[in-house]
Amino acid sequence: MRLAQALFAPRAVALIGASGDARKNTARPQRFLRKHGYAGRIVPINATRDEVLGERAYRRLADAPGEIDHAFIMVEEVEEALEDCARKGVAVASIYSNGFADAGAEGAERQKKLALRAAALGVRVLGPNSMGVVNLPGRVALTVNAVLEMDAPPAGSTSLVSQSGTMLGTLLSRGAARGLGYAKLISVGNEADLGVAELVELLVEDADTRVIALFLETVRNAARLAAAARRAHAAGKPIVAYKLGRSALGEELARTHTGALAGMDAALEAYFRDCGIVRVDMLETLIEIPPLLNGRRPRGPAGAPRVAVVTTTGGGAASVVDRLGLHGIELASMHDLTMTATKDIYRATLEQLLGSPGCDAVLAAVGSSAQFHPELAVEPIVQATRTAKPLAAFLTPHAERSLALLAEQGVAAFRTPEACADAFAAFFAWRAPRQKMGTDPIISLGEKIGSVPNFELLAALGIPVAEHAVVQAPNFVHSIAYPVALKRLDVEHKTEVGGVVLNIQSGPELAEHARRMGQQRLLVQRMEHGLAEAIVGYRDDPVVGPLVLVGAGGTLAELYQDFAVELAPVSEAEAEAMIARVKGLAVIRGYRNMPRGDVKALAKAVAAFSTLGSEVREAEINPLIVKAQGVVAVDARVVFNDA
Amino acid sequence: MRLAQALFAPRAVALIGASGDARKNTARPQRFLRKHGYAGRIVPINATRDEVLGERAYRRLADAPGEIDHAFIMVEEVEEALEDCARKGVAVASIYSNGFADAGAEGAERQKKLALRAAALGVRVLGPNSMGVVNLPGRVALTVNAVLEMDAPPAGSTSLVSQSGTMLGTLLSRGAARGLGYAKLISVGNEADLGVAELVELLVEDADTRVIALFLETVRNAARLAAAARRAHAAGKPIVAYKLGRSALGEELARTHTGALAGMDAALEAYFRDCGIVRVDMLETLIEIPPLLNGRRPRGPAGAPRVAVVTTTGGGAASVVDRLGLHGIELASMHDLTMTATKDIYRATLEQLLGSPGCDAVLAAVGSSAQFHPELAVEPIVQATRTAKPLAAFLTPHAERSLALLAEQGVAAFRTPEACADAFAAFFAWRAPRQKMGTDPIISLGEKIGSVPNFELLAALGIPVAEHAVVQAPNFVHSIAYPVALKRLDVEHKTEVGGVVLNIQSGPELAEHARRMGQQRLLVQRMEHGLAEAIVGYRDDPVVGPLVLVGAGGTLAELYQDFAVELAPVSEAEAEAMIARVKGLAVIRGYRNMPRGDVKALAKAVAAFSTLGSEVREAEINPLIVKAQGVVAVDARVVFNDA
Repeated sequence: MRLAQALFAPRAVALIGASGDARKNTARPQRFLRKHGYAGRIVPINATRDEVLGERAYRRLADAPGEIDHAFIMVEEVEEALEDCARKGVAVASIYSNGFADAGAEGAERQKKLALRAAALGVRVLGPNSMGVVNLPGRVALTVNAVLEMDAPPAGSTSLVSQSGTMLGTLLSRGAARGLGYAKLISVGNEADLGVAELVELLVEDADTRVIALFLETVRNAARLAAAARRAHAAGKPIVAYKLGRSALGEELARTHTGALAGMDAALEAYFRDCGIVRVDMLETLIEIPPLLNGRRPRGPAGAPRVAVVTTTGGGAASVVDRLGLHGIELASMHDLTMTATKDIYRATLEQLLGSPGCDAVLAAVGSSAQFHPELAVEPIVQATRTAKPLAAFLTPHAERSLALLAEQGVAAFRTPEACADAFAAFFAWRAPRQKMGTDPIISLGEKIGSVPNFELLAALGIPVAEHAVVQAPNFVHSIAYPVALKRLDVEHKTEVGGVVLNIQSGPELAEHARRMGQQRLLVQRMEHGLAEAIVGYRDDPVVGPLVLVGAGGTLAELYQDFAVELAPVSEAEAEAMIARVKGLAVIRGYRNMPRGDVKALAKAVAAFSTLGSEVREAEINPLIVKAQGVVAVDARVVFNDA
Repeated sequence: MRLAQALFAPRAVALIGASGDARKNTARPQRFLRKHGYAGRIVPINATRDEVLGERAYRRLADAPGEIDHAFIMVEEVEEALEDCARKGVAVASIYSNGFADAGAEGAERQKKLALRAAALGVRVLGPNSMGVVNLPGRVALTVNAVLEMDAPPAGSTSLVSQSGTMLGTLLSRGAARGLGYAKLISVGNEADLGVAELVELLVEDADTRVIALFLETVRNAARLAAAARRAHAAGKPIVAYKLGRSALGEELARTHTGALAGMDAALEAYFRDCGIVRVDMLETLIEIPPLLNGRRPRGPAGAPRVAVVTTTGGGAASVVDRLGLHGIELASMHDLTMTATKDIYRATLEQLLGSPGCDAVLAAVGSSAQFHPELAVEPIVQATRTAKPLAAFLTPHAERSLALLAEQGVAAFRTPEACADAFAAFFAWRAPRQKMGTDPIISLGEKIGSVPNFELLAALGIPVAEHAVVQAPNFVHSIAYPVALKRLDVEHKTEVGGVVLNIQSGPELAEHARRMGQQRLLVQRMEHGLAEAIVGYRDDPVVGPLVLVGAGGTLAELYQDFAVELAPVSEAEAEAMIARVKGLAVIRGYRNMPRGDVKALAKAVAAFSTLGSEVREAEINPLIVKAQGVVAVDARVVFNDA
């Protein structure tokens, strides 16, 4: 039978470890399946009882009659239960039990074995440490999440894949309170087998699902999720993600400049953008944005987006518009009908804006009337003839009935001005998945390692390098024109240990400094000057793969976190778009009549550096000097993957 | 009679323009007063009826029997109504009618006259364009806000002063939905007479009010509000403000560098901090934070604050902690009881943290159980023995009963992780009101204007200035040692028009450049070099008064909005704290072993510049060069108030 059916719509479910004590977590799946009208067979398995919560129970799975599509494992003896499942021909086992990757190195080892054994047995596994699966249109509430105590969770066309079991309940209950329903909700737990990416694949094929929402703590299979996201895009099913870790700069990334600068979050931001996944900043936006995305496509980068506003409350509308401004979104027009609104005027204004080329989206704000008088301004929103243009409502009072009315009619409605602005910002930042270029490195690195390996590598990539030579004690002779710089070859962070002398004017001066450094071999470089310094970085990120970075040079990239990151490789045009996002590089873009730097040459260098490929773990040019004509690399470092 | 009584607890209210059509806005005050149990006399005034909604009405106020404390004016003929009020001895007139400062220059003129006339008549005015006043403990619902259709808004100890009438209903209804009540709610409208500041003064004296919440669109009387805030602080009544305009850089401020950099919002941020007013970023935080502030004092700047977490949901807690990190708040410890929580363990863990010196605040997060099983983790929060340590709860599901339970017991509880983190951040940024230094200028500016007025002014303030001289055609002689800089005296933004030549090495070279500039008089300056450049600004802000700014020099302050602003004047110690907030000035604070600049000398210059006083509209030193020893100003401009 098909995986999707066994997972989402099993004909028979075994509850391994079902408790007869209705108050226990392990009694919940049985209670919830019954409560929410599951139509298939429920088979409680309990080692000591023949009856559980009034239903016939079995001591062992083997004793149970008939075929079982899906088993829900709640016992500690997970491995044994899995063997039982295999013998019974169970297609999917969802494992609630914990003590696996959630429990240190030993648990991780246990999980690895479990996954291997499951694969060998041909049983697909959800979890361990999963809270289960809910299929609302199918009336399958196969979960321990306490929120299913609620009476009638509404079905809808958004499906959720969550790495937090709690969040399954959070989204379901918060949505239900205001009429926003779900199709499928899946708690993936530790993802020993079935992961976020494969679930997205299943949801792309799922007829009930129109929008896919992800609650993420990490990304475990970035390549497969990227492919699944492209399939979702092709199928017209938007994906929206909330991801934890905005403030946590990954430990591993902190080790080198590039890493510390890019940080885990910037990498994931680039990854989501690359995949065409909408990323929201706030948790409630994940609940509220689906109607805004449903059936729509990314707008693409067509200048600053303009939102038009129709409102019955100046203050309420301003609370959204104020935050739109923080996201660089412009106000197309403001129609404040506070004192003059009738439902006809409100509707006519709305329809005029929805049909007008003068704005890219419409915000309908409603004040106090939304709570007890929806006919005044909420119903006109519902009744207005809609267009492809994004429309969002913000209601200032506590107005759950009005929110539900809007939800019923598929109008995106927001409880807070912040989530409303976050949704507009996320919508406008949404891009179609990027077409990948080939990722083969353009050079074979092994052949290029000369006496100054980093510079040889740059030269091989076609990136200009400052004229240089390695000089030897005792005479340190070279043929580079003065002034020159003298650098140690044996240390990183040379400046901080006195390993760099700049602007040396003559041979004797050079010899003097060289002797003071006490090294046999040193690097002499021609002094280079330009209009600005840039930093260009490359990193094979363990989560999302190769990344390229461009930032303002010197201390700016670090002090101001002023850099742009994309998944590598990038084209020259894409590199130019990255450069445009770096604030500190404004100085070479014609800022305040300052002389323009060679942005094209910088973009070319970024694009070339982005092709380094899998032999390199991380690399950095710092600084790359940008001139009026051309660029030149003054220092660089490379760490190979086998280093 | 006392203003507070007439405003908040009138014994008799006249409703001028009360409608007999219950569906009309102008019928609401009468309906709401009755609905919510007003105990005083209600006197509808209606030009054509003797009965309104079943109550005896009068054609004119003069016809009404007995004394009237408070009139609510809803007619267009406001001026006439005001005269009637005066004749009747009405103490306070709240004016709902609009068409005043909300309606252009003509309306503003009308309002000015109205205010003058009211003062002459001795009638205090709330509004015009006010939605009225609500006193929940006193059962006075004197408002047109539709939210009062609700049945039983709970009374509480927070009072609201709002410049948006809608927001009165927003806070009341959203609070009520989760058991958060209010004492007084006042819609101030256009503030022709009674303004935010005077209302704060009244609320400081109000026995029912423990926390004062402000919804602000602007600040109309900054000095009086600052004084009122100091009285509130002395009385132990925290003030919390939400202010619109985070993204709107004021038009007027954009005119000069300092202005454009500081922006209206940075000025207000400094103002609120100076006044000891807690500023929140999100609208819902304004509703949710009062229990966190109630009875507490500012913690003060004692290192990075540390929050300890106890939770039944890893994902839910992480969604808050992630954002705390964005605010620079640290995690003291994380107690994830997801699988092990009993109510006893939860409570014991909480009490241990509340009593521990290892954290500055405690976050209690609760997952799905909060909706239907408050006994598991919500009741333990309520039951835990509390300390002075701030405690906040975040509940992941839709759980209004649990929120109400927490509200009832005075525990701050948050619906969203973002508002929860915003509240912690606002709490920890809270400072006691600053003690003001004298604001007299230390010099009399008029006497100091010499041939290079800006430099003379700096010298008078004790700020070192680069050695300079004014040179004359045709010989441009001077006695400053080379190299020097040559600058035009007649233009601002000299660099952009070719009005600056740097690093001139000799007299002939100087003469050549001077001739090319084609000016009779030019400035010659000794070339100065240092470790970094800073910008120091001063501005007499039309809203909050004199401000001082320090930022990174060159293009950094503008490109990165990298500057610190405070209300002027500041002490040297305060100036040092400002410098510490400027990221780009890290380069003189010992960043990466770079040589340290003279931060004390920079602070001294900032403090001196901050004393400019009322003769100056705006002034700027850009750049001020920071050396290892001392600072030196290289360029400056001053605009006088009478200019």
